[in-house]
Amino acid sequence: MIRSPYLLYLGHSNDEVGIKTSRGLAVFRPDDCVGEFRHDDCALTLGLSRMTLEQAVAAGAKTLVLGIANAGGKLGDDLVADAIAAIAAGLDVASGLHNRLRDDPALVAVAEEHGRALHDVRDPRPDIPIGNGKRRAGRRLLTVGTDCSVGKMYASLCLERGMRARGLTADFRATGQTGILIAGSGVPLDAVIADFISGAIEQISPAREDDGWDLIEGQGSLFHPSFAGVSTGLLHGAQPDALVLCHDPVRDHMRGLPHYPLPGLKETLEANLAVARLTNPDVRAVGVALNTSKLAPEAAKRLCAETEDALGLPCTDPYAMGVDSIIDRITACFAPSPRVATLSR
Amino acid sequence: MIRSPYLLYLGHSNDEVGIKTSRGLAVFRPDDCVGEFRHDDCALTLGLSRMTLEQAVAAGAKTLVLGIANAGGKLGDDLVADAIAAIAAGLDVASGLHNRLRDDPALVAVAEEHGRALHDVRDPRPDIPIGNGKRRAGRRLLTVGTDCSVGKMYASLCLERGMRARGLTADFRATGQTGILIAGSGVPLDAVIADFISGAIEQISPAREDDGWDLIEGQGSLFHPSFAGVSTGLLHGAQPDALVLCHDPVRDHMRGLPHYPLPGLKETLEANLAVARLTNPDVRAVGVALNTSKLAPEAAKRLCAETEDALGLPCTDPYAMGVDSIIDRITACFAPSPRVATLSR
Repeated sequence: MIRSPYLLYLGHSNDEVGIKTSRGLAVFRPDDCVGEFRHDDCALTLGLSRMTLEQAVAAGAKTLVLGIANAGGKLGDDLVADAIAAIAAGLDVASGLHNRLRDDPALVAVAEEHGRALHDVRDPRPDIPIGNGKRRAGRRLLTVGTDCSVGKMYASLCLERGMRARGLTADFRATGQTGILIAGSGVPLDAVIADFISGAIEQISPAREDDGWDLIEGQGSLFHPSFAGVSTGLLHGAQPDALVLCHDPVRDHMRGLPHYPLPGLKETLEANLAVARLTNPDVRAVGVALNTSKLAPEAAKRLCAETEDALGLPCTDPYAMGVDSIIDRITACFAPSPRVATLSR
Repeated sequence: MIRSPYLLYLGHSNDEVGIKTSRGLAVFRPDDCVGEFRHDDCALTLGLSRMTLEQAVAAGAKTLVLGIANAGGKLGDDLVADAIAAIAAGLDVASGLHNRLRDDPALVAVAEEHGRALHDVRDPRPDIPIGNGKRRAGRRLLTVGTDCSVGKMYASLCLERGMRARGLTADFRATGQTGILIAGSGVPLDAVIADFISGAIEQISPAREDDGWDLIEGQGSLFHPSFAGVSTGLLHGAQPDALVLCHDPVRDHMRGLPHYPLPGLKETLEANLAVARLTNPDVRAVGVALNTSKLAPEAAKRLCAETEDALGLPCTDPYAMGVDSIIDRITACFAPSPRVATLSR
């Protein structure tokens, strides 16, 4: 386990997209974040106190989280130097970058010398099974999308917060590096070997008998030609009872692929329901989550209303407008799960 | 490259399924196989001359192929001892097992001492790109299936042989360890990291301008809850012009999953066409391949005729009855590919 509280790293970043992991932690685990570390040339802030490494340690920080992404997910010299300084100051270091901390001999040596831990959250655990598709107890909701990076993690986390606020039992299940750092556990699905995609999801969302919900973070899209395999295995492993469709209304083509237009919402929903039915024939859609951060408030509200009418599902921006309408639909659709002795397909 | 000719290893095997890689080589690369190596307690044969290691070297063998599978894909002590003896006798060693030759220190030491090569065909190359979904020149046929292990590799290889016999240009593209050993190259798709599934297929079947066909070996099934992610990425990466649907008519449930019945042929075909259309909207089905090895000849012929009527596609057992009817359909459907300057979606 990664020890909190955290000092969030921004370094020399000047790209808002590049700090999304640090920002995710600041938004969804504010109580665990004591401050942010940035150099003078960093124009971004998470709204936390700017701290030196020593100030952070004095404030109780246990781990420096390298919550940034740069080209290729590399550990640059700057990053390594800062991580070494953090270890010397008394902090563990956690990273979601593609390049592993443990593959940098200098970092490993300094961590050993100071008795500090290095956490690579993109390392899948070694005991992931092949998926078995067996029906398991408990309720699961999966966020799916028209594209990558359209708000599936935010929607899942907002649902966790909203459901808990109503006294429901609900647990976010992370499948990406930011989510794993927020939740403290999960599977970095993009780093799992192909044959184990669905098994990895069965592993992180096992049978549960407490009437609680697993809220599983979706990845990719069935309509993204680079990553649809991941999304397919995720759907089958999740065995979802409920789907929430996530979409970015200002996106005009698939992420990274200008030659692929975005699919329609209805088409996306139908395709996801069809694939999901293989492992849960009773799956149903319970809502649509739009990322309206680039729209004016009135336009955002209008779009949500229009989408509700078009799809017959509650539609909201989970982060800006809350998730009440989707939770209403969930509680209306799903009575507390029956205690069935045998759940067989 | 793995040097031929090969000595095919059977060892102590007594399970026909366990020697399928050695058998595949004997069937599809007979001219490259000088003999078989088996211990006295092995009741199986490939119909090749039984040879000692020394006899095989004298007959020109360059590589011992460990074309067997045992529980867990492990390198047992027997196997390692035989491989060391083979190296000492002057042979390279190739393996498709999950456990890697290069991870056995004794094997590595002996191979270095004798200057012999160890080939682990389940090692993906390190430079696999993320798939880009860009339309590329050339014709591609993909074998898809109702389940795993229903004859996709055999169908693909029989089509290669049959198309070449008619003077067509056609190249088998391997995606599994047996296929890779037969073809001499390919990608072990089950060992690729999830994010790179479709990119791996784009890499092994690049654009071609010679009017030839890539015949891509399918894997898994869209209806197999353990592996459908792999099949989905394969479909998208293959960008197939043509699909051949493979099926085992005596299979009564999905491989390894007694709680999942097999999907229908029509349902399977429609699902595969729908997924394939994302990267090639013009994809079409050109035939059905049945593995009729467990049926009487008359029953097999009747089943093929019935399947033809039901699906409106040529249906055959590629290995037992040939692939003429499917090639006829391919040549009827596809004129030599036009030399288009730009192929953009």
